Amino acid sequence: MAKQQLTPKSQDMSKWYTQAIQQAKMADYSPVKGCMIMRPNGYGIWEQIQKQFDPMLKALGIENAYFPLFIPLSFLSREAEHVEGFAPELAIVTHAGGEELEEKLVIRPTSETIMYDMYSKWVQSYRDLPLMLNQWNNVVRWEKRTYFFLRTTEFLWQEAHTAHAHHEEAFKMVLAGAEAYRTIIEDYLAVPVIKGRKSESEKFAGADVTMTLEAMMPDGKALQSCTSHDLGQHFSKKEAFNIAFQDEQSETQYAWQTSFGLSTRTIGAVIMAHGDDDGVVMPPRVAPTQVMVVPAGNSEAVTAAIKKVGGELAQQQLRYKVDTSTEHSLGWNLNQAEIQGIPVIIVLGERDLAQEQATVMIRHSHAKLQLPLLSLAEEITALLENIQAEMFEKALAKRDELLTDVTTYDEFKQVMADKKGFIKAFWCENAACEQHIKDETKASTRCLPVIDELGNVREEQGTCIKCNQPATHRWLFAQSY
Amino acid sequence: MAKQQLTPKSQDMSKWYTQAIQQAKMADYSPVKGCMIMRPNGYGIWEQIQKQFDPMLKALGIENAYFPLFIPLSFLSREAEHVEGFAPELAIVTHAGGEELEEKLVIRPTSETIMYDMYSKWVQSYRDLPLMLNQWNNVVRWEKRTYFFLRTTEFLWQEAHTAHAHHEEAFKMVLAGAEAYRTIIEDYLAVPVIKGRKSESEKFAGADVTMTLEAMMPDGKALQSCTSHDLGQHFSKKEAFNIAFQDEQSETQYAWQTSFGLSTRTIGAVIMAHGDDDGVVMPPRVAPTQVMVVPAGNSEAVTAAIKKVGGELAQQQLRYKVDTSTEHSLGWNLNQAEIQGIPVIIVLGERDLAQEQATVMIRHSHAKLQLPLLSLAEEITALLENIQAEMFEKALAKRDELLTDVTTYDEFKQVMADKKGFIKAFWCENAACEQHIKDETKASTRCLPVIDELGNVREEQGTCIKCNQPATHRWLFAQSY
Repeated sequence: MAKQQLTPKSQDMSKWYTQAIQQAKMADYSPVKGCMIMRPNGYGIWEQIQKQFDPMLKALGIENAYFPLFIPLSFLSREAEHVEGFAPELAIVTHAGGEELEEKLVIRPTSETIMYDMYSKWVQSYRDLPLMLNQWNNVVRWEKRTYFFLRTTEFLWQEAHTAHAHHEEAFKMVLAGAEAYRTIIEDYLAVPVIKGRKSESEKFAGADVTMTLEAMMPDGKALQSCTSHDLGQHFSKKEAFNIAFQDEQSETQYAWQTSFGLSTRTIGAVIMAHGDDDGVVMPPRVAPTQVMVVPAGNSEAVTAAIKKVGGELAQQQLRYKVDTSTEHSLGWNLNQAEIQGIPVIIVLGERDLAQEQATVMIRHSHAKLQLPLLSLAEEITALLENIQAEMFEKALAKRDELLTDVTTYDEFKQVMADKKGFIKAFWCENAACEQHIKDETKASTRCLPVIDELGNVREEQGTCIKCNQPATHRWLFAQSY
Repeated sequence: MAKQQLTPKSQDMSKWYTQAIQQAKMADYSPVKGCMIMRPNGYGIWEQIQKQFDPMLKALGIENAYFPLFIPLSFLSREAEHVEGFAPELAIVTHAGGEELEEKLVIRPTSETIMYDMYSKWVQSYRDLPLMLNQWNNVVRWEKRTYFFLRTTEFLWQEAHTAHAHHEEAFKMVLAGAEAYRTIIEDYLAVPVIKGRKSESEKFAGADVTMTLEAMMPDGKALQSCTSHDLGQHFSKKEAFNIAFQDEQSETQYAWQTSFGLSTRTIGAVIMAHGDDDGVVMPPRVAPTQVMVVPAGNSEAVTAAIKKVGGELAQQQLRYKVDTSTEHSLGWNLNQAEIQGIPVIIVLGERDLAQEQATVMIRHSHAKLQLPLLSLAEEITALLENIQAEMFEKALAKRDELLTDVTTYDEFKQVMADKKGFIKAFWCENAACEQHIKDETKASTRCLPVIDELGNVREEQGTCIKCNQPATHRWLFAQSY
């Protein structure tokens, strides 16, 4: 098999992205407009995310459940901002079972409304709170053009929805959700993020506060990786879903709610952040395959050694593949491992065996080293953790290069015309200025960064980059995906 | 909280079933006709099934992927039997993103067509085979009336789809899939099943052979728990999805395919098979909560002991809940554990502590015993495995009581009018006889039982129960869910 052509990432990231993903067999276009197919090398990352994140949710006391895919159209209208936000993206079922439906059904774009209708039924007393449920499911928001992982009509996610007796407890959950996301995205996906609050115009349709984690892609555009919402009493109030309960004093109160979600979109961040001109590069902790073991030559001794190494890697709970067939050449195997971004390749040949060592190739750094056969699996385990740390450091350095503090609007425009990236600048928090900046530079507010795990922000004295009126916070701006 | 009314299972199984499920907080009705909500106590069983079954699929070399929820309507028509089988149950999206769609989209009732369209693209050479993918997803087949878990418009399942170069290899996969299902259903859900081949009229729309696992419910009706299909070349042939490949001799061949699925329907089997007049009873291996630890009285010593026991159960990797609040009485706690069918309850009071023991209550047998505190967690682990075995034996004995060999049609009709259950009887394999039997007794052919893991069946000489013509196989008949 000839090496497939791949546009260099440095030359055209967008072309590189779609080619690298297809060559790595992570995803493919589907015959349905706006929808993609996640192949095992892409879906496998999602499986690792689920494996790591699901226990974090359970540790927060959140249990998994499953609610219907279909939502009566009328439900969405019960929270005014919510329906306005989602109406243009809805897919609607009008016929089913051979008949026209009496009430049209929406395919869930998110599950607030169908879940909270039930919360209203299940919550009667303060003893029924907190009610904390999560779903791992698929949602649909109509898109005409597919951009693998980042923009697809259907995507997979988890959506957690909690209801509490007090706002303080609810807000703690908003922060805990955001912090769990930071852990997954930084510590597992090796993508540095900035945690902060969304502006009024950028927050979730139906939230009081939206916390976001913003990542920076190498082309200078930001990617909102996941969000955690303080829903206040927007959905619980009587006119919406009426999630009322009797408190300890038998007074009627309305629940305080949160919702937070993490989607397959994050897989796009992994690919963009770490890939290089040779293709995708997987961070070890979420790589579907962490190690590929391939033979140089095909003697019986080599085949036996490869199987033995495979067994040792299995004992270390590593995710590995071995090639013991004689069908593929070493070059083919190395090429396959490279375009799939497998973090570590172990090559074993007669000469390696004679020297009681293995040749080890590291995908992200293109480094090559020799490791003793005797303790190979243990050394590989440690090496993978090193690679994980190095990949995060590399991504962080790249992100920091793309983070500019600016004090004048001319400077702002210059950065956005030039290298782009994140800009930190004072903004007066007036929506008109935000809109003008966006119209003129394509940069939107990404967030107001928080400075601690309590969600506090830095108070400062400055003037708005756009209108020169007093401003008390430095916001993060960027063009975005 | 007063004990809720529950219709005894022995009196009206159908009423008992829907009441017991709601009281156990396993499921609830949704505002969308035909759809249900799986609450944590119900969905938790699905999580355990996934946790056990997913590694079995991976051990067969099958990888997980994800294909779109939407299928172009025209795709279904490419395999004639397939579209005929599913057309009446389809849900159809006609509008999306604010516009009427050019081609209407079907919500997947199963994914053969959308997957095989891609298989056709991905498979070019014998080197691309076998191609073996699985999805854990949701599917929609329109139903107007909800019967929790057993009959719902939307349900969750896994669907594995494999393509092979040779029929022999494909058929081995059909059998391996069926055997993996037997393991899950018998060894984890503790529900005995009879494995066999479906008749021509009962097989999957588009299959050459369908293997099924049939369980018997205490009311004498059979439940088809899951199926594994030999699709032959129905979908791969040129006129259908054209999954063509060059073999070793560069000749064009068409792939041999299989598909097999296991759904949330099986949760219904668990509930029906094991429940008693006091509510649902969970088999330990799939119980979302295996052990509940509750205090008798609320002294500090008791609370401390309960926490300690909780820690020890955690070390044994058991799924447990403790109640250290003073809110609930012992009676309330015991009642909750009972209606949720938690396999084991540990009660700890001052007297237990003084005697260095715990009082242990077993849900399925209503037995009560004392176990030493010192080795409690280990003893509970062993006890849970005993309970698992006992529950299977009990279900097997019940099933065997409901399995009758009959030799005359009068006898057949008598059994079906009386205790129902499985009937084994000679049938000539003529569809007309099958239909007559069904019309007259409501009993359909469930399967032709296999006698080994190679899928062989017993050849015998007899006469058809209905028409007295020669018959070579004894089939399994039953009324069914």
